[in-house]
Amino acid sequence: MTGFSLSPRLAADSDFVTDWPLCQVRLMDDRRFPWLILVPRRAGLEEWNELTRADAHQLSEEIARAGEGLVQHFKPTKINVGALGNIVRQMHVHVIARFEADAAWPGPVWGQGTSLSYETEARERLCGELKARLDPSL
Amino acid sequence: MTGFSLSPRLAADSDFVTDWPLCQVRLMDDRRFPWLILVPRRAGLEEWNELTRADAHQLSEEIARAGEGLVQHFKPTKINVGALGNIVRQMHVHVIARFEADAAWPGPVWGQGTSLSYETEARERLCGELKARLDPSL
Repeated sequence: MTGFSLSPRLAADSDFVTDWPLCQVRLMDDRRFPWLILVPRRAGLEEWNELTRADAHQLSEEIARAGEGLVQHFKPTKINVGALGNIVRQMHVHVIARFEADAAWPGPVWGQGTSLSYETEARERLCGELKARLDPSL
Repeated sequence: MTGFSLSPRLAADSDFVTDWPLCQVRLMDDRRFPWLILVPRRAGLEEWNELTRADAHQLSEEIARAGEGLVQHFKPTKINVGALGNIVRQMHVHVIARFEADAAWPGPVWGQGTSLSYETEARERLCGELKARLDPSL
């Protein structure tokens, strides 16, 4: 993991939740959608096809784990998963809880409208709840 | 794999390229973007967190393989990967070659503008080229 550092843009747009074996798990600061991002702690990584086979397996497990956590916590209609990176090239995977009444349904969340930040207290509380949900052994 | 059948909507919007161990690989009929979809051949599957661990590993390998094939064939700026399913619930993963000059850059492709079908001959030729690229042993 030598040399990994989080892109300034991802750092500014999201908050730390927990570290998993491969990815740092972060909460996007947009209260319109319960929205996690998973950032593999691998320096210079941009594309799925650049993952080692072992990392590709681990990433898929961590996507499933994030999705399962969102399902349990928010009871959404659907989970959306996406790795785009057209703007921020550092590889990051979005795992988002979607609802039929949300601000972008049934379209994708990216590029839709304007994000709405959490209140500080609400954000800290949700990060704590998600950490407890996603790391149940802690 | 008992009971798997492709959703009529996915069948109508895309063409068969090849079958991999887990997924059926199909070409989306939208010549604005080189766009594959991977459909796990598992009946009733909708969410990433419903995959078995073995299937989650295999899916991730097949996403990487599809991305690598698109990189080799089209030399894109970026690969986009997405599993949304808000409209078509059968699990399917989009793997799309993106270019800075394409019709939706840097936004996501979903829900952007109107798809443009391939001419029949061009579509059949591209499906054949992609099959050769993605299944190099055949």
